[in-house]
Amino acid sequence: MRTLEKIKKANDIRNLRPEEYEDLAGQIREFLIEHVSRTGGHLASNLGVVELTMALHLFLDFPKDKLIWDVGHQCYVHKILTGRADGFDMLRKYGGMSGFPKRRESNTDLFDSGHSSNSISEACGLIRARELNGGKEKIVAVIGDGALTGGLAYEGLNNAGQLKSNLILVLNDNKMSISENVGGMASYLGKIRTSTQYEGLKDNVTNTLEKIPLMGERLVRQIRRSKASLKQLMIPGMFFEEMNITYVGPIDGHNIQQMYEAFLAAARKNGTVLVHVITKKGKGYDCAEHDPGQFHGVDAFDVETGKRLNEKRGDTYTDIFAAAMNELAVKYRNLVAITAAMPDGTGLSEFKTKYPRRFFDVGIAEEHAVSFAAGLAAGGFHPIFAVYSTFLQRAYDQILHDVCLNNFPVTFAIDRAGIVGNDGETHQGIFDISYLTHIPGLVVMAPKNATELKEMLEFCITHPSPTAIRYPRGAASQTLIEFQTPIKCGECEWIAKAGKILLLAVGSMVETANKVRGLLEMEGITAALVNVRFLSPLDETMIAAALSYKIVVTLEENVARGGFGEEIAGKLLGREFAGKFLSVALPNQFIEHGSQEELKRAYGLDADSIIARLREFGMPGI
Amino acid sequence: MRTLEKIKKANDIRNLRPEEYEDLAGQIREFLIEHVSRTGGHLASNLGVVELTMALHLFLDFPKDKLIWDVGHQCYVHKILTGRADGFDMLRKYGGMSGFPKRRESNTDLFDSGHSSNSISEACGLIRARELNGGKEKIVAVIGDGALTGGLAYEGLNNAGQLKSNLILVLNDNKMSISENVGGMASYLGKIRTSTQYEGLKDNVTNTLEKIPLMGERLVRQIRRSKASLKQLMIPGMFFEEMNITYVGPIDGHNIQQMYEAFLAAARKNGTVLVHVITKKGKGYDCAEHDPGQFHGVDAFDVETGKRLNEKRGDTYTDIFAAAMNELAVKYRNLVAITAAMPDGTGLSEFKTKYPRRFFDVGIAEEHAVSFAAGLAAGGFHPIFAVYSTFLQRAYDQILHDVCLNNFPVTFAIDRAGIVGNDGETHQGIFDISYLTHIPGLVVMAPKNATELKEMLEFCITHPSPTAIRYPRGAASQTLIEFQTPIKCGECEWIAKAGKILLLAVGSMVETANKVRGLLEMEGITAALVNVRFLSPLDETMIAAALSYKIVVTLEENVARGGFGEEIAGKLLGREFAGKFLSVALPNQFIEHGSQEELKRAYGLDADSIIARLREFGMPGI
Repeated sequence: MRTLEKIKKANDIRNLRPEEYEDLAGQIREFLIEHVSRTGGHLASNLGVVELTMALHLFLDFPKDKLIWDVGHQCYVHKILTGRADGFDMLRKYGGMSGFPKRRESNTDLFDSGHSSNSISEACGLIRARELNGGKEKIVAVIGDGALTGGLAYEGLNNAGQLKSNLILVLNDNKMSISENVGGMASYLGKIRTSTQYEGLKDNVTNTLEKIPLMGERLVRQIRRSKASLKQLMIPGMFFEEMNITYVGPIDGHNIQQMYEAFLAAARKNGTVLVHVITKKGKGYDCAEHDPGQFHGVDAFDVETGKRLNEKRGDTYTDIFAAAMNELAVKYRNLVAITAAMPDGTGLSEFKTKYPRRFFDVGIAEEHAVSFAAGLAAGGFHPIFAVYSTFLQRAYDQILHDVCLNNFPVTFAIDRAGIVGNDGETHQGIFDISYLTHIPGLVVMAPKNATELKEMLEFCITHPSPTAIRYPRGAASQTLIEFQTPIKCGECEWIAKAGKILLLAVGSMVETANKVRGLLEMEGITAALVNVRFLSPLDETMIAAALSYKIVVTLEENVARGGFGEEIAGKLLGREFAGKFLSVALPNQFIEHGSQEELKRAYGLDADSIIARLREFGMPGI
Repeated sequence: MRTLEKIKKANDIRNLRPEEYEDLAGQIREFLIEHVSRTGGHLASNLGVVELTMALHLFLDFPKDKLIWDVGHQCYVHKILTGRADGFDMLRKYGGMSGFPKRRESNTDLFDSGHSSNSISEACGLIRARELNGGKEKIVAVIGDGALTGGLAYEGLNNAGQLKSNLILVLNDNKMSISENVGGMASYLGKIRTSTQYEGLKDNVTNTLEKIPLMGERLVRQIRRSKASLKQLMIPGMFFEEMNITYVGPIDGHNIQQMYEAFLAAARKNGTVLVHVITKKGKGYDCAEHDPGQFHGVDAFDVETGKRLNEKRGDTYTDIFAAAMNELAVKYRNLVAITAAMPDGTGLSEFKTKYPRRFFDVGIAEEHAVSFAAGLAAGGFHPIFAVYSTFLQRAYDQILHDVCLNNFPVTFAIDRAGIVGNDGETHQGIFDISYLTHIPGLVVMAPKNATELKEMLEFCITHPSPTAIRYPRGAASQTLIEFQTPIKCGECEWIAKAGKILLLAVGSMVETANKVRGLLEMEGITAALVNVRFLSPLDETMIAAALSYKIVVTLEENVARGGFGEEIAGKLLGREFAGKFLSVALPNQFIEHGSQEELKRAYGLDADSIIARLREFGMPGI
C-alpha cells in the first residue's frame, strides 16, 4: 500500500512512522504534478510547501487546532492531507473542488480566501476569541514573503505584537510573490537568508555582552552610540522583534523534523512567534523549479517538457494591452507603468524590459500602487496601473481619495473584469462597475474588442483626469472591427439604430449582444445595438435616444446592484420611459468557479439565455 | 510690528532673524488658540507642530520644494506660514478656508487630503517623477506615529526603502493618534523615546566592534549567536534601518535649530531618511496639553476654561449607539467591539472601561479591523466594528472578501453616514450605500430615529450573517417615535399609506420626508411615507406596493450613482411602473465643507428644496 493511500482524512498523517515521511512527500509531489498537469491549477507554490504542510499536520490536531493559509492557492497539500485527494480530478472545474480553501469542503478550512495578506489579522481574531473562551487550541497562520509586502499584513503584525497568548505565524519564504519579490522587506529577508546558516533554534544562548568581565558595560554603551557597527551585526529578525514578535529561524522548509521541532518550541512561548521557513517554489519538478513564475498558475501541460497542451487561441486582452503599452510609450514620454507584483499577469513584462526606469513593481500593495500613482501624476507623469479587477478592490479608498478627489490623470487598466473562471468566488471581477462608477470624476470605459482597447488606452493617456478601462480575461474579441468611431469622452458608439428593441451593451457583452441581434434577425426581428463604451460619464444622447424604443435591454458582466443597468433604469424612469426594460447582469451573489462559458450560461449571460428571457418578456413578433 | 505680521506669503519666514523665531512660535500659538476657540477646528495637533512646521519652512523653498502632510488636519501652521492667516476667520465655514490641505488654496498644498497614511506613497511618486525629470527639489513627507499604524504607510516604507535619491520622512511622534496610540509599533517608538536621550545626530561614530583589538571578530560572532544580548542593546531605528531607511533621531520637536540641522543632514543622504521628531500634542495651551484627545477636533470653546461654548443639543446618534452597546453587552455575552483608533469618536469609551476584555482598539488600521472581526466571528463572537463611513472605505475589500464571502456575523456600525459638515470633501459619508449594497449577503440598514438605532443594533447581534447600520453625524432624530414596528430582516415600515405620492425615505431622510409630507398636507395633498429601513435586502412588498402610486420619490443622503434611488428605479422599471419617479440624492460629486444644514440646502436635501422639485415635476394638485 502506497503511503499516500494511508491518508484518508485529517490527522491520518500522525499515524505514519517518521521513516514514511519522505515517501509521502515524494508521492504527494507525483500526485500534484500528475493531476495539475491535467487540470491546470497552482503548481509551483504547492510543490514548495509539501514538507511544510506535512510538518504542520504532524504538529496540529484537526479540527480542534486552527490553520490559516494566506491567499490560499498553496492549500493543495493541505487538501490531500485532509482526505480530499479524490477531488483533484475535478479541481477548479464547474461543480468540482475549489483551488482555494473553502469552508463548505472541510472543517479544516477556516476561511474562504483568495486575496492576500489577511491571515495574520484573522488569526488575531481567533486568538482573542480563544482568550475569551478560555480555549487551548493551537492557532497557526502561514503567510508568504510576497503577502508580507501587503499593508494589511503589517497592520496584523502591529496588532499581533500585543497578544499575550500564543500565536504562531509561519513565514513561508520562497523569495517570490507570483513574480520576483520587491521592496525593503524582500531585501531584508534576503539579508537574513544570506547572512545566517540554517541553524535551527538558538534559544538557549545565555552569553550576553554585559557579562563579559570589565569590558561589558562599556561595550554596550559603545554599541548604542554606533549604528554603523550594529548594521554589521546583522541579527536575523530584529524587524519582527522590534514589533514585539519573537523571531525563530531561518529554518529549512524542506526538513520536516526541524520544522516540527521549531513549531513545538514556538508553541511554548507566550505572545506571537514568527517561524521563518525557507522553501523552494516548484521543489521537486525541474520545469517548475527553473521557472516558478510560469508554473505559479498553469493550464494543462506536458509533464515531460513542461509545455502547455492546449494552444492559446489568439491574442488575449492582456496581450493587446501589452503591445499597446510598448507602442504608446514611444509616443508619450510621460507614460509610466505600475504593477502590484504581477508584471507577467498584467502584460507588463516587456514594458519592464524596454523601459525599466518607467516601470514600477511595488509588490503586493495595491493601496500603495494607487497613492504612488497619485504622486507620480502630481509630478507630471501619466501612470497606468495595470491590475486585476478583484485586486483593485483593495484600493477603493485610494482611488477615491488620493486620485479622484485630486483629479489626477491616472489610468486604471483593469484586467480580468467580469467572470474569470476557474479561480472562483475570490477572483471574479464582477464588482468593479459598482465600486468605480459612483466615484466622482472617474471616467470608466469598456472596449468592445481588441482594437478598441488600444484606442481607449491612448484616449486615457491624453485625458486630463482619472480614467479606468475594464476588460475581460481571455481571448480579445475580434468582432465588429469595422466599427471604429473615434473615442470621445462620454460618447457611445451606435452599431445599429433600426428596430424596436435597443441593446445597450458594455464591453465584452457587445459581442454577445451582436449574437443576440443575429438570432433575432433570423426570426425577422430587427434590434438596435449600442456599444456603450463609457460607463461614466454616461452618454446623455444615448439615454435620450433610448426613450423612443419599445424595449431597452442593458447587458453587462457585473452584478446587477450598482451596475450599468440600474443607472440606465434611473435615467429612463426619471424621463418617464414608457417601454419595457430588461437588465442582463449577474445576480447579486458570489459566483463559484468553472469555465467562463459554463458560468456565463449558468447565469444567463450567453446569447441563448438572453433570447429566452426576451421571449418570456413578450417580445413583439415572437 | 508683530513678527507674525511679517509673514505675508510662503518663504517669508526665511527672512526672519533667528532670535525672532521664538516670538513667531508664540504668536502663532496665540493666533491658533484665539481663532480655533471661535470657529472650532483641529487644535491640539496644530499646537504640537508649530516649531516643526517653522523648521520645515526654513528648510524648504516653496513652491519648488514639496511638502506633504499626512492626513492634513495639522496643516494650520503651514497655512499661516503660506500667507493664509486671513482665512482663519472663515475656517471650515461654508465658502471659507478648508481645515485640510487644498490644492485650490495654494500651490504649497500638493494633495487634497484627509485620510491617513498615504503620504509616504505619494512622496515616493514625487521622487520617481523627480528622478525621471532630473529635478533637484527637496521632497518631505510628515507623518504622525498614529498614521504609521496604517498598512498603507508600511507599503510606502517598503517601497521607500528602494529609493536611490533623497526622500525625507518626518515622523511626528506625539504618542497619539486621535486617542492614545496602540500596537507593536507604538510600543517600539515608546522604547526608543525612553531608552535614549535627545542627542541629535550621531552620524560620525566610527568605532565599530570589529576594530576592538583581538576581541572584535569573536564578539561579533558571539553577538550573532545571541539574540537575548542584542535585545538589551536597544538601538533606535532598527525597524526602519532593516527596511533600508536611514533613521535619524529622536529629536526634540520643539527645538527649531536642532530640527533644521537634522533636515540639512538628512538631505545630504541618498535614499530615504526618517527623521524621528518628538512633539507634544496641545503644546503651549494647558487645557489641550492636559487633554489632547478632547482638543483634537473641537467646537468653539472658552479659552480660559477650555469648555465648549454651545451646549450640545440632545443626544447624538453616537451617544445612542454608546448607550445601546453598554446595555446589549450585558444581554449578549458574545458581543465584542472594535475601533480603529477612535474609541471617543465612535462612542466606545465607556464600553472600553466597562468591558476591557471585549474591547479592541486596533489603531488606524481599518483593513485589519475588518479581517480581525472575521477572525473573531470565526471564533464564535459577534464583533461590532464602529467606524466612520468615510474611513470604512479603506476596508471595502475586507468587508467583501473576509466577512461577506464567508458570511460571518460581523456588524458595521457606520457613524457619520451622509453629510458630515465642516471637515469637507474627505470626510463626507456619502458613498457607503453605493459601496456596500452591492456586496452579496450584506444586510444594510438605516434607522429613522434614536430608538430605531438601538433596535437595529439588537437585530444585528442576533442576525446570523453580516450586517451594517448607517447613521448620521449629530443629534439623533426623536420624531416618529410612535412608530415602532419590530425590526424584521428585509421589511420596511409604513408610516402612512394613503395618497398618490409615495415617499421612500432612508434613515435621516425619513424625518425630512415627514416634513415634506406636512408641507404637502398644508396644500391639501396627501403623501404616503415609508421608512425603508433595509437598503439590502430590499423589501419586495414595498416595491410591489409602490407600483400603484402615481409618483414615487426616493430620498437618501448618498450620491445618486449606485444609491437607493437607482436600485428602486431598476426594480420599478423592470415591473413596468408607469408613474413618475424622482430620486432625491446628492449629485455625483465631492461635497465641500460647510454646516450640515447649509450643505443639505445647497444640494437639495431639505424639505423646501424637495417640495420645489416636486412642483417642477408637475405634482397633481399643485
